[in-house]
Amino acid sequence: MPDIAKLLWPKSVAVVGASSDTRILRGRVFEIIRGHPFAGEIYPVSRSAAEVQGVKAYPSIEALPQPADLAVLIVPAEFVPAELERCGRAGVKAAVILSSGFAEAGEAGTRMQREIAATARRYDMAVEGPNTEGFANIAASLCANFSPAMDQSAGPLTPKRPLGRGEISIISQSGGLGFAFFDRARPRQLPFRYVVTTGNEAALETSDFIDYMLDEGGTDVFLLLIEAVKTPEKFKRVAEKALKAGKPLIVRKIGQTEPGRRAVASHTAVLAGSQAAYRAVFDRYGLIEGRDFDEMLDIASGFLACGDRMPLGNRVGICTSSGGAGVWMADACAAAGLDVPMLDDETRATIDAHLPAYATSQNPVDSTAQGVQKLGYARFAQLVARSPLVDGVIVVITARRSAFLEADLPKLKELARESSKPVFMWTYTLPAERTIEILNEAGYPLFTDALGCARTLRAMAEYWVLRERLLRPLETATHAPGRAKAAALLAQSGGVLCEYRARPLLAAYGIGADNAGTLARSAEDAVAAAQAIGRPVALKVQSDDIAHKTEAGAVALNVSGANAVRAAYDQVLASAKRHAPAARIAGVLVQPMAAPGREIILGVNRDPTWGLMLMVGLGGVLVEALGDVALAPVPLDHAAARGLIARLKGAPLLGGYRGSPPADIEALADIMAALSQFAADHAEDIAAIDLNPVIVRAKGEGVSVVDALIVKRDAEPAERRGAAE
Amino acid sequence: MPDIAKLLWPKSVAVVGASSDTRILRGRVFEIIRGHPFAGEIYPVSRSAAEVQGVKAYPSIEALPQPADLAVLIVPAEFVPAELERCGRAGVKAAVILSSGFAEAGEAGTRMQREIAATARRYDMAVEGPNTEGFANIAASLCANFSPAMDQSAGPLTPKRPLGRGEISIISQSGGLGFAFFDRARPRQLPFRYVVTTGNEAALETSDFIDYMLDEGGTDVFLLLIEAVKTPEKFKRVAEKALKAGKPLIVRKIGQTEPGRRAVASHTAVLAGSQAAYRAVFDRYGLIEGRDFDEMLDIASGFLACGDRMPLGNRVGICTSSGGAGVWMADACAAAGLDVPMLDDETRATIDAHLPAYATSQNPVDSTAQGVQKLGYARFAQLVARSPLVDGVIVVITARRSAFLEADLPKLKELARESSKPVFMWTYTLPAERTIEILNEAGYPLFTDALGCARTLRAMAEYWVLRERLLRPLETATHAPGRAKAAALLAQSGGVLCEYRARPLLAAYGIGADNAGTLARSAEDAVAAAQAIGRPVALKVQSDDIAHKTEAGAVALNVSGANAVRAAYDQVLASAKRHAPAARIAGVLVQPMAAPGREIILGVNRDPTWGLMLMVGLGGVLVEALGDVALAPVPLDHAAARGLIARLKGAPLLGGYRGSPPADIEALADIMAALSQFAADHAEDIAAIDLNPVIVRAKGEGVSVVDALIVKRDAEPAERRGAAE
Repeated sequence: MPDIAKLLWPKSVAVVGASSDTRILRGRVFEIIRGHPFAGEIYPVSRSAAEVQGVKAYPSIEALPQPADLAVLIVPAEFVPAELERCGRAGVKAAVILSSGFAEAGEAGTRMQREIAATARRYDMAVEGPNTEGFANIAASLCANFSPAMDQSAGPLTPKRPLGRGEISIISQSGGLGFAFFDRARPRQLPFRYVVTTGNEAALETSDFIDYMLDEGGTDVFLLLIEAVKTPEKFKRVAEKALKAGKPLIVRKIGQTEPGRRAVASHTAVLAGSQAAYRAVFDRYGLIEGRDFDEMLDIASGFLACGDRMPLGNRVGICTSSGGAGVWMADACAAAGLDVPMLDDETRATIDAHLPAYATSQNPVDSTAQGVQKLGYARFAQLVARSPLVDGVIVVITARRSAFLEADLPKLKELARESSKPVFMWTYTLPAERTIEILNEAGYPLFTDALGCARTLRAMAEYWVLRERLLRPLETATHAPGRAKAAALLAQSGGVLCEYRARPLLAAYGIGADNAGTLARSAEDAVAAAQAIGRPVALKVQSDDIAHKTEAGAVALNVSGANAVRAAYDQVLASAKRHAPAARIAGVLVQPMAAPGREIILGVNRDPTWGLMLMVGLGGVLVEALGDVALAPVPLDHAAARGLIARLKGAPLLGGYRGSPPADIEALADIMAALSQFAADHAEDIAAIDLNPVIVRAKGEGVSVVDALIVKRDAEPAERRGAAE
Repeated sequence: MPDIAKLLWPKSVAVVGASSDTRILRGRVFEIIRGHPFAGEIYPVSRSAAEVQGVKAYPSIEALPQPADLAVLIVPAEFVPAELERCGRAGVKAAVILSSGFAEAGEAGTRMQREIAATARRYDMAVEGPNTEGFANIAASLCANFSPAMDQSAGPLTPKRPLGRGEISIISQSGGLGFAFFDRARPRQLPFRYVVTTGNEAALETSDFIDYMLDEGGTDVFLLLIEAVKTPEKFKRVAEKALKAGKPLIVRKIGQTEPGRRAVASHTAVLAGSQAAYRAVFDRYGLIEGRDFDEMLDIASGFLACGDRMPLGNRVGICTSSGGAGVWMADACAAAGLDVPMLDDETRATIDAHLPAYATSQNPVDSTAQGVQKLGYARFAQLVARSPLVDGVIVVITARRSAFLEADLPKLKELARESSKPVFMWTYTLPAERTIEILNEAGYPLFTDALGCARTLRAMAEYWVLRERLLRPLETATHAPGRAKAAALLAQSGGVLCEYRARPLLAAYGIGADNAGTLARSAEDAVAAAQAIGRPVALKVQSDDIAHKTEAGAVALNVSGANAVRAAYDQVLASAKRHAPAARIAGVLVQPMAAPGREIILGVNRDPTWGLMLMVGLGGVLVEALGDVALAPVPLDHAAARGLIARLKGAPLLGGYRGSPPADIEALADIMAALSQFAADHAEDIAAIDLNPVIVRAKGEGVSVVDALIVKRDAEPAERRGAAE
């Protein structure tokens, strides 16, 4: 692994391709680097100019008076591989490749990108890019990029009065968006450590930078902008490492929609993967998804300002002096899933003593303009924070004038020291710069978006609960004999395993043993099997070539009596042959009818990026019309399975709904955990599993797997298509 | 109706209660008024001071050298009624009551508020408030308010280079939020006409101000912030007037959630009403709902900049030079319901000629930084706008530097003149002030939020379609004899009409005639009725005291044969008596079983603000677990009913779903229109109607009403509760 410190903390920098023309990117890069007080040497390298922007230039990287630590390459793509090779030979240990025209630009570019990766490996160089906008190391005042947001004219790199005691780093595949985070954060005076934009990730990828920064320790909160994760296993590993370290990863994955994915593909030449699978992985590792720049910055500033002062629950007290703004914030809290409870009588009595008669202490606590003028924001917040019914406080302020807060500053600082609960500020007018400085100094995050403020409090409340839950080792355990048996059966099977062949594999994991059934190869077989079962049965044609038996008319339900069984046998067989004359038919499965209950769909599918994901959904219209399903990477344990079920929109239907008894969620979670373990144990071989439907009965009465299908990874595409028909 | 012009355009203003202490509100108001170049006279009125802030003061409103047009009252609540009376006597024609402590503060306050209203009526005075923050007339430089956003120090009232040719007005019940819109719009340099905050609306309400401004004509776009509409009929009338005038009303209703509603009630002492009903009314009159300040300002600036240049559809072309930002915008467009189609080959070829090889013209069209540098934003947008496959263009820019746009200005102006399609700008970095001025001058709205940009384009595309549809007169027609018959039956009935009594009323409107059934008073009656029907029947106990027959076990389905009918008759009767021993039982309804189909729930309910609303939902889990219903005010016609059905999340289930035939949506829409007409014709008498379920069969096969219940408005509360049990 190359040393990323050489990239981010070089002592000297060479800009290969630097120009004196600051209207073009080659000139801009050099101008921006020199515009900030970076303490190291900066060498322009130019084939044609003896001097660049007044600085002596060198004809090649090898001609420098000493090897540079870092080379910034901005030459046409076709020259980059040779230039990087030259850097390696010259002992340069890190490079930023700003040039475009690689994997995003077709085959020749992809070839050149592979060459770059190989050169980086060969010389153990830390290489960022290509097709990147570069990076900034704020503490070192090093801006190796061409972002207009890093122009000297855009303002200083470090704010006058930063919020909190920690630092934020941004890692973004997109250069424009990465630096936009930094730029948009400027008015908030947030402290940043690094902005890294990774581009095509020929060598170093997002995960490598997270990993380095976690080890380095200077970053407290991460903002991530992801187009596609390149090495999923590495990403999961560093995500878990961040979670263990208690350093929140605030993330947005772009390319969520069809035109977005199309653009990602052409932009960085990677497969964007399924958004739902990304979300499932984010959930699994406690990443916090943000919807846009501002919300992500909101969440970052909440974590930064509050340090360990985390909300212990979802209950919030709102202090306001504008009735309407209090209502606005109450709506936002409810939308974010926070409770705004009526305050307790004791707290209300204490507050009422300070407020005019026409104010109200219920929550939102509306002091009116007169009331807050008397009391001050700090004292007001303090009274509300003391209520045992709230876990955090949001103070609605108008930050347009700073004078009032200025006078309140000593008390604000006192409250910040004293309160164990987070106190947030939301302003409905625009804030004056001085207001921001006062609040940063006192340690309060200031929000201008009500929903962003409420979502931040919610995300913080969830993070520590999630962290505890997610870091607990999964309570999964595979059963070695079952595993070996299933592996052997799987090895013997063809690409598609219809129900009678899938069941023994699942049974090895304790799945669906209650109604395995008997494969009948004649009508008399079927009659005998039905008699042995002794109650109404289902008959289902078994063929690896017919995945959807019901559509083929090759299923008979609720059959009883020898004659009826015999007739049903003939009928399902005839239907199957009519539907698929060439299908190889193994026989007819005779099973006891499952006792009725709620229909659930369980499945395992392979995401192109993240591998096997368990899927659960409530059968019927919820899955089919509304797509109400939940995903998680395999394996998961009983508790995680319960969590997954709870994420379904239709979950209330399982919980004892309209007088019907609660469903056997325990048994459902057990079977989900077992199925996920089966999938994880045989991940190399499995493409997909369908248990559809699974019948979940009332609590204590268990579940039945009514149908099963396994598709192996080596199934011919045609066979897979047939199975999916 | 008092003359609102006297309030908003006075020639002279008296501030009653003015003070020299500018730390308190009474001093702030006077300071703020004087801080702007209002051309009229300003008189301080003070009981105690001979001079206020250096201006000669008068001891009372009657002592002024001439009657003021407008009195601004900021004296304690208990003095306000007498002071207003004094204003009336002195010939003052308008007043702003800034004082708090009225209906929001209990009974005594409510009485004083009534007195104010009476005085306003008596003197025909235009009275704003009480409990308001006041107003601003931007053109007149009159700031009769105490908002920190209107401080002289907050900046000039009119921007240096405003966007567009029209003006925006803000009308808000909340003072803080109303002026916050103005404040937050400042960096965008948007042109405003009025900011009016209406407070408790003792006399003038939001609708009155909209009405005045529509007549006056100076306002092109309205921003509304509503806590509760006071006079629903008036609001509907002015909303329709605005729609006819093509002046968009961009609205947010606050108090959407329980704590929010609690706060509204204590804040302005009005019932907040059902959010769903408000939304239904907004939909009916083409109001555009915004989610927060910024989105509402986004939508306003879109309408303002584009004038008549409206998008004729949902298809958008995205121009970008940052790949990642293009993806971000494509995601936002998809989230807003816009299409980002692949461009046509001809357009692509034209664009490709200008771009480097590693750029892409598919859409988002990614020129790369190099490409746009050569082409310029205007020319780039022009090429995309010419594609016949797009209705509007979004240009992704970085507005941090203005120099590039400055050079492009002549071409930007040319494009604005030439293009019939709207062109929007979205910047991912923060904009420089000069960039905003350049784009305002050229006439392009600049967005910083991607979703807000996309939502604006979508809202504009919908507005003109909606406007055409909504202004078309409803195709409803009541049938006079049916109406008279239903009215007579309704007059004879008690408070709750169970099915056999509800059906004749509905039948008078052509609803549910196919399976009216026969009321049997003995088992033999029932057998005879079943024989006459000649196919399986349902038997249902009829009692106005038992609204939920199924739960009472007082329903038998699918009964055939004389013995079975007889047994079912006895059984449902016995169950009913067991369930409700005191219930008065009219008999048992014998009906043909309805042919199967999709279950729909139709209902009519009375919203406390908006009156009767028709509700439709898909029966089963969609309604019951997910609350998937749609509402509209009655009456609605066939086309509106179809629109309502389409708004259900489960609507795809009706449209020919998974191979099942499409449902008879035409017949369903017919019955919805008829039911809504019935409700509208008898609105005075009706509290609620339930048709649950209605069975909708395949296209052409019609619908059946399987159960019906009507509750009259004069039903005793106890009786109503019984019916709802």
